[in-house]
Amino acid sequence: MKHFGESSVKFANPPSILGAAAIVGPKEGEGPLAKYFDKVSHDILFGKDTWEQAESELMRQTIETAVRKAGLPMKAINYILAGDLLNQNSGSIYGARSFERPFFGLFGACSAMGMGLTLGAMLIDGGFAENVVANASSHFCGAEKTFRFPLELGTQRTPTASWTVTGDGAAVISANGKGPYITAATTGAIVDLGQKDVNNMGAAMAPAAADVIAKHFGDLSLANDYYDVIATGDLGKYGNKLLVQLLQKQGLHFGDSLTDCGMLIYDAERQDVHAGGSGCGCCAAVLAGYFLNKIRSGEMKKLLFVPTGALHSVVTIQQGETIPATAHAVAIEAALPHFSE
Amino acid sequence: MKHFGESSVKFANPPSILGAAAIVGPKEGEGPLAKYFDKVSHDILFGKDTWEQAESELMRQTIETAVRKAGLPMKAINYILAGDLLNQNSGSIYGARSFERPFFGLFGACSAMGMGLTLGAMLIDGGFAENVVANASSHFCGAEKTFRFPLELGTQRTPTASWTVTGDGAAVISANGKGPYITAATTGAIVDLGQKDVNNMGAAMAPAAADVIAKHFGDLSLANDYYDVIATGDLGKYGNKLLVQLLQKQGLHFGDSLTDCGMLIYDAERQDVHAGGSGCGCCAAVLAGYFLNKIRSGEMKKLLFVPTGALHSVVTIQQGETIPATAHAVAIEAALPHFSE
Repeated sequence: MKHFGESSVKFANPPSILGAAAIVGPKEGEGPLAKYFDKVSHDILFGKDTWEQAESELMRQTIETAVRKAGLPMKAINYILAGDLLNQNSGSIYGARSFERPFFGLFGACSAMGMGLTLGAMLIDGGFAENVVANASSHFCGAEKTFRFPLELGTQRTPTASWTVTGDGAAVISANGKGPYITAATTGAIVDLGQKDVNNMGAAMAPAAADVIAKHFGDLSLANDYYDVIATGDLGKYGNKLLVQLLQKQGLHFGDSLTDCGMLIYDAERQDVHAGGSGCGCCAAVLAGYFLNKIRSGEMKKLLFVPTGALHSVVTIQQGETIPATAHAVAIEAALPHFSE
Repeated sequence: MKHFGESSVKFANPPSILGAAAIVGPKEGEGPLAKYFDKVSHDILFGKDTWEQAESELMRQTIETAVRKAGLPMKAINYILAGDLLNQNSGSIYGARSFERPFFGLFGACSAMGMGLTLGAMLIDGGFAENVVANASSHFCGAEKTFRFPLELGTQRTPTASWTVTGDGAAVISANGKGPYITAATTGAIVDLGQKDVNNMGAAMAPAAADVIAKHFGDLSLANDYYDVIATGDLGKYGNKLLVQLLQKQGLHFGDSLTDCGMLIYDAERQDVHAGGSGCGCCAAVLAGYFLNKIRSGEMKKLLFVPTGALHSVVTIQQGETIPATAHAVAIEAALPHFSE
């Protein structure tokens, strides 16, 4: 059994991330991580006619790039696991249509990349696949249309609101390769402390992030300083403050090693994004573009990647429901870890 | 490697379905399978105030029943994998909230139960879990609201339209138990032959079903008469006719062993459901209620369960897009099969 404690697994033969790619839109291309992305599109429609088609094209291009960088033909991909924010996962489904590969659609809102990496690594370590693509995408304009207001209204945003990233991150996970390795994963439950403000999703998601991080360290008996970086995605700056407090109550002090993808992708001073970036594509692009390059270059050795998702819909919020949230923790390491069996 | 051919896997130690449950609404309780369901609710709101809350309550009750029938406490469930049709998987997410178990949200429209069974069996056979719940739900009123017209309009339905089942099927998949066993699975790609009529989803999904069935038999080198029953879900009667033709073109003749869950759940003469039943909960409830009981009683030995999904959204259809579809084939057998290694 590879299951540990309440909610965690360690991989017997940790799969490698053989190749990864991140493509983003114009605003993300003006941010501090621009140089790490494979491509910055200056056309937010990605050559298409609608926001939804744009997201699918962004998704298609990013997966194609990741698979090419992994040195594989598309036919070598046994499964694609992908998620996004649009109703009925349209971004992923229309984007993956041309690949003709076995496909699993995931829904975990902005935690989607964590689900894809976890399930993808399980499929490989379980012997069911040699190569799998995990992908997550989001598009600012499609997300505003789906969850908030038509852009044409020019609605003012509250300070705690986040800015949905136009971006996609894809990772080719493989039984072959020499790292970065996916070594362990902790899968979150649905956590709902009763928060109702959809303009403060960081507050809704912070308890889910705290829960899964605490379980990860507890289940695997890890020291607080085991990871170089613990990166949630995407709580934004207000959610991040709450998370620090929630973790401290449980004796988990991570100091500067705790960060958030939504705080990294934009320049808070210059880009007017309020709480920071969000959206399935935010942490996926920051992982695929920034963190994996830092691990490959040797600047970082051990990353705990913790995508978080706010799992409400417009309808449930209109009905007075609270915002359920989740988070998934995925350990990504440059070398095979000592804790693996 | 447990991967075979293009898209199939065989399980090394086929997991058992330790317990299963099906709960349905009033209309399904008037159909020919009524006696096989664990509960027929005569209140289509399941005691709640909205259709969405009703679906979540239906989902919660069904999972609770299945886990109880498996003889397990909820804490013994390592993962819940669940999907539905509502925007952002609200039916599943709000329903699973109280269980506090690690949760993976799936989106494959009406193919969701196939995804859950496949991934669930992989998680167990891969050594990552001991017990997993796979679940799929749908609610007629919530689906009409999400995809079609407000019920209050009394809109007339076209003859090829299907009737979304108010129902839920849950299966507890386990490393323990003595069957029925999940022995093999073939995962579908996204197939889109350009069909645009959302009132004829059977036509959109039949090519995906034909594709995955042909791959299943090809990948695993099975004789045409290997299975007692091949049950798609849910093409309805028009989609079923197309599927027979598409399979015959590939030399696959199944005769009476080929059926469709959407054709079984209602009485076509008496219940005015046009093409038949549909919705994630249709094939899930027919599997959990009807087929698994037939296998347990010895009346049926080998079932190929093939849930199919139409993967469009209202927005993509309004934008003139076609309907992408998928299907997943899951082999469920009373005894450990000779073809397993």
